[in-house]
Amino acid sequence: MSTEKRAKAGLLEVCRGNAADRVPVWILRQASRYLPEHRELLERRDYRQLSTEPELVVEVTLQPVRRFELDAGVLHTDPLFFLEALGIDVRFTEDGPRIVNPVRSRSGVEQMGCEPANLATLDYLEQAAREAARVLDPVPLIGICGGPFTLAGYLVEGCASRHCDHLKSLLYNDIEASRALMGRLVELASEALLRQIRAGAKVVLLVDSWSGMLSRRDYREFALPAVSQVIDSLQSYRTPAILYVNGMNHLADLLAKTGAQVLGLDWRVDLEQMRTRIPENVSIQGNMDPAVLLGPPDQIREQAVEILSHGTLYRGHIFNLGAGILPDTPPESVQTLVDVVRDFDPRLQGWTGVAG
Amino acid sequence: MSTEKRAKAGLLEVCRGNAADRVPVWILRQASRYLPEHRELLERRDYRQLSTEPELVVEVTLQPVRRFELDAGVLHTDPLFFLEALGIDVRFTEDGPRIVNPVRSRSGVEQMGCEPANLATLDYLEQAAREAARVLDPVPLIGICGGPFTLAGYLVEGCASRHCDHLKSLLYNDIEASRALMGRLVELASEALLRQIRAGAKVVLLVDSWSGMLSRRDYREFALPAVSQVIDSLQSYRTPAILYVNGMNHLADLLAKTGAQVLGLDWRVDLEQMRTRIPENVSIQGNMDPAVLLGPPDQIREQAVEILSHGTLYRGHIFNLGAGILPDTPPESVQTLVDVVRDFDPRLQGWTGVAG
Repeated sequence: MSTEKRAKAGLLEVCRGNAADRVPVWILRQASRYLPEHRELLERRDYRQLSTEPELVVEVTLQPVRRFELDAGVLHTDPLFFLEALGIDVRFTEDGPRIVNPVRSRSGVEQMGCEPANLATLDYLEQAAREAARVLDPVPLIGICGGPFTLAGYLVEGCASRHCDHLKSLLYNDIEASRALMGRLVELASEALLRQIRAGAKVVLLVDSWSGMLSRRDYREFALPAVSQVIDSLQSYRTPAILYVNGMNHLADLLAKTGAQVLGLDWRVDLEQMRTRIPENVSIQGNMDPAVLLGPPDQIREQAVEILSHGTLYRGHIFNLGAGILPDTPPESVQTLVDVVRDFDPRLQGWTGVAG
Repeated sequence: MSTEKRAKAGLLEVCRGNAADRVPVWILRQASRYLPEHRELLERRDYRQLSTEPELVVEVTLQPVRRFELDAGVLHTDPLFFLEALGIDVRFTEDGPRIVNPVRSRSGVEQMGCEPANLATLDYLEQAAREAARVLDPVPLIGICGGPFTLAGYLVEGCASRHCDHLKSLLYNDIEASRALMGRLVELASEALLRQIRAGAKVVLLVDSWSGMLSRRDYREFALPAVSQVIDSLQSYRTPAILYVNGMNHLADLLAKTGAQVLGLDWRVDLEQMRTRIPENVSIQGNMDPAVLLGPPDQIREQAVEILSHGTLYRGHIFNLGAGILPDTPPESVQTLVDVVRDFDPRLQGWTGVAG
């Protein structure tokens, strides 16, 4: 399919709630290890290079769009590197990301800077986004950032955490420090996204998965105001925001209040049951279990068609996985999936294809 | 409060849906590191000893019930050790549990034995449960096991996993091996629970948290039949089962179909929103965020009272945390919590206490 047709099919249209000829598709973590060409680059360069050196970021961003007929490219970077603009030391180890000095007190929060010198660490974002947007055009580029609560999670816990207990402890025990912390991260996230938008990103993806660990009460108090402020700061550009929270089943109506035009649903969400909890003016993205791509093609097709059919119940539906693609996924499974989505006509609410 | 009064208050009554004078309370992982007396034992003995040597299991089980006025003791063991009855080599390292040779193929499943010699590895369960039940009486002892899907998760992944992709891959690609695997684990879980029941456990807790990673479709196919069979196997003893799944928000109505008399709700569940999704013949347990116990006493009281008030909407409510207590929890916070629950009168639907 030509890139013109892909652009016309309309990720942007669906984000805005306009009717589309077909369901646009892209894949969470579409630029990652499951691609042989990505692994090849990783043999010679490390994760930091692939995520922060403009030329490499562009190459990695383009790889999946070259291979599959995807309806968007997503800037390949890691929002944790953005924390370096606050003077935070971020390392990537075999066990995942590590913050060398986690912020766990009011003084820690106060010491975080956002000096012009540090902000220069974000310059690569603009360079990479500009070039990626240019090469991809007319296929849109999606800019990316972590939600403030998720950034706070890494900053305070220092590494992936099952419970986020240090952060919650800080939020519960020191309201002023919490406000200062979240305020800084709102500024940082807005800055990072605006740079990508000015450089040509047409949509932004806010990944705020750690907020899925919050009760509704805590989400309302600690995460919702911050992510709403970030989305609000993009208003003048009219750039749609996709808000993805892994574990959002209990938060759906609150997420819809953030101003996000699209909610990313994780794979555990039942699209029929969710229907009444998402307002008419919000589109959805999702939500196949990434593990299905480890199974046989028939099952991939069957599950994709089920999701596509239920997707027609919503204002708009962007097909995606319900979480990042798994490293062991065979690229052929992705091809099978993309073919099914291509052959689905949302106006007929049915699968018209013979792919297989 | 006397143990007689505690017994009368009635965990068992609430499990069965009978009216109770007050809300019974116990705490997920109530016997663990947050207790100084538990840490003291861990200085001289390791986790395996504390979980499998009958005298130590009894001592650790009793510690929290001695310190707080809890309405149940929970046998302190780790269901992963039960896998040794299948000839599986289980190790506990600093990074958590490890299965030395994860089962990932049909031949691996077929090689798992359940020989009488291996079953003897479960003997400690009966000895420990008998003595713990005797000393606790009339406070009831809760027996414990992992749900078949969760046991399968560890067996196949070999360690904690965020996505359970090896297990899902096996389930999707080899139906026969999956059935054989789940069948074995149903037998094992039933055996382990029946031994505890015969030794005096009055209630059982099935922890099936990994099943919360499944879509509804997969839960229905892979986890629901197995956990239902385990609960069914306890029928003749009329012992109520509490089914706890961390991340159960999307599965509530399916969990209610397992035959469990009580559903354990994780802390993300909004009790008011959940009300219509849980049938009238099922009681609930939960669901305070364990991190709240890291915060100030006022907040502990406020959140507990909110949960207690919403709990009156259900057939029966056992107060508990919505996940295991965190290691950094101050024991005084637990005391604050227990006091609030004690002073709450479910018939008045209000907090009558002055604890503080």
